[in-house]
Amino acid sequence: MKKISISPKSADFSTDLYFGEGILESALTSCFTQRKGKRVIVTDPWIAELYALSLAKQIGAELLVVPRGERAKTQEVAFDLLERLFRMGANKETTLIAMGGGSITDLGGFVASIYMRGIASVFIPTTLLGCVDAAIGGKTAIDLPFGKNLLGTIYPPKVVFIDLDLLKTLPETEWRHGLAEVLKMGLVQDPSICQAADTRDQTVILKAIQGKVSIVEKDPFEQSIRRILNFGHTVAHALETVSRYEMPHGEAVALGCLVESYLSWQLGYLSQADFHQIEMLYEPFPRKLPRNYTRDSFLQALDRDKKKVGKEVRFVLIDRIGHAIPFEGAYVREVAFDAMRSTWDWMEKMAR
Amino acid sequence: MKKISISPKSADFSTDLYFGEGILESALTSCFTQRKGKRVIVTDPWIAELYALSLAKQIGAELLVVPRGERAKTQEVAFDLLERLFRMGANKETTLIAMGGGSITDLGGFVASIYMRGIASVFIPTTLLGCVDAAIGGKTAIDLPFGKNLLGTIYPPKVVFIDLDLLKTLPETEWRHGLAEVLKMGLVQDPSICQAADTRDQTVILKAIQGKVSIVEKDPFEQSIRRILNFGHTVAHALETVSRYEMPHGEAVALGCLVESYLSWQLGYLSQADFHQIEMLYEPFPRKLPRNYTRDSFLQALDRDKKKVGKEVRFVLIDRIGHAIPFEGAYVREVAFDAMRSTWDWMEKMAR
Repeated sequence: MKKISISPKSADFSTDLYFGEGILESALTSCFTQRKGKRVIVTDPWIAELYALSLAKQIGAELLVVPRGERAKTQEVAFDLLERLFRMGANKETTLIAMGGGSITDLGGFVASIYMRGIASVFIPTTLLGCVDAAIGGKTAIDLPFGKNLLGTIYPPKVVFIDLDLLKTLPETEWRHGLAEVLKMGLVQDPSICQAADTRDQTVILKAIQGKVSIVEKDPFEQSIRRILNFGHTVAHALETVSRYEMPHGEAVALGCLVESYLSWQLGYLSQADFHQIEMLYEPFPRKLPRNYTRDSFLQALDRDKKKVGKEVRFVLIDRIGHAIPFEGAYVREVAFDAMRSTWDWMEKMAR
Repeated sequence: MKKISISPKSADFSTDLYFGEGILESALTSCFTQRKGKRVIVTDPWIAELYALSLAKQIGAELLVVPRGERAKTQEVAFDLLERLFRMGANKETTLIAMGGGSITDLGGFVASIYMRGIASVFIPTTLLGCVDAAIGGKTAIDLPFGKNLLGTIYPPKVVFIDLDLLKTLPETEWRHGLAEVLKMGLVQDPSICQAADTRDQTVILKAIQGKVSIVEKDPFEQSIRRILNFGHTVAHALETVSRYEMPHGEAVALGCLVESYLSWQLGYLSQADFHQIEMLYEPFPRKLPRNYTRDSFLQALDRDKKKVGKEVRFVLIDRIGHAIPFEGAYVREVAFDAMRSTWDWMEKMAR
């Protein structure tokens, strides 16, 4: 028997991220004077009217409009988009610009990663959640009817433009959804974020971004420390699945972080004082389970969690504000069914 | 404006390839005593009965059967497979073993690359074409109704087992399909392959494999030299599209290599003597265009070639047996519409 070890040159998975206020037009123009090939902007109807139409004219891009929000992340929308790319003559030199919230960059990144085995993508997030989370780190995804983000790739965009001016038109609820991820970053890694007087401050947003960047650089394929970014998300994804994706992701994450903090306390890792401080951080967020929530449907969705590998569901846990527990490099711990019961009791009472 | 450069740790894209006769059972067992997690074998009904059923028992794998040949590479089959993976509880530690011809490894590799953002894949090619080409280099693919291999990823398997014993049951026509890729390897890189008395010899097959390995190691994402492996494939893919994938890939590649050799001669790169020698190499192959071939449908399919970036179609060309022309590192050249006409005239006369 002959053994041949194939070791290809490694891929260029680097991303240039530009951050500032009012930077988009000039930064985009200078980016696209250097890039060859067709450009196409994938966006939703709302962003098309607000920004993308005029931007498309500016850089000579075609516009492909898809539904707004999680409804964009379906097999049907993805394949419709792939077909439209093909019909417009998109080829390997085409750049796909995804402009919108996290759903648009998740979908656009996924489509770019599988069209002709991968074309370049550029992200322009227009929500706080997109800026601090979805647009960074190369996770792309669409949903299947039985679970969120079940299909996807790790395929970082070539460039991300974060222009805080775009957030000025953001409704109050959308701001809150992003803050849920900003606070999560604080809980698992950077306590100074949780102490900030104004979490909407530019420096706080930048801290959240830099925190995420430092983690995905270390572990782009989520084999260890990147898992801490899933804090709150085990519960959040299960709630979203129960609600058939009607519950906004940010709202689910806020509730999920609170519940998983409670679990961290119940399991003896987090102090009561820290837990109460976290409770106050999440005061501004609605505490509402999906209308069709039942314990059974929730547990069933939880049981399908992507992090699960054995019989038990695995959770990221924290032992103080700003510190996820390493668990010998795994950053997750299996929690037995019985040990979680009191947490679900509490969640159902707290978030009726 | 602040610029942040994100440079993630690079991915592990390496593959262990095992080559020999009668190696499969022991090699597979030793591989899977080390791998955790569920195993699932994706295969076609024919291979299931011949080999995969007993292998599945041996390593405790579940079996997922998909249609045979190019009919496996559709959106429907891929999503059906993804759903079956989910319903059987496949998670991030699951290994997907694709056992079959090139279509099965293309499909299986694609599904593995997008399920939960990527699970491990292992390939066991059962055709010569799979052994020397499809199973090596990480290209995965499914077709869209309007073009072959339009969707896919570059996602190398963790392990490839090439057991020549599996080829013993291969029908004569299937051998020929593989030989088309072996000879292609000879034409673009290794003249000794074209000089071999018996192209079915184990050492010739190993040469073709090693040739491909050396190229994909240098350029895994096909930005330069890997393009030479597409010699013959520009014409081949167009013919396959015209035939609605009824023309076997190997047959199309054989015809494509001959036609693109003719084009290389017509454009003044290849000598007449070399072209005639190539004509003789392809004597054993059928010379038949698809039943529903028309010049128009062919040119339309050609115009949609994946390598195309400008107005003209790009071809890999050779200037002697065993040498593709570098064209300043691009390894392809645009050929004007008019300059190709005599080649299509010849093709239509030669392959009626």
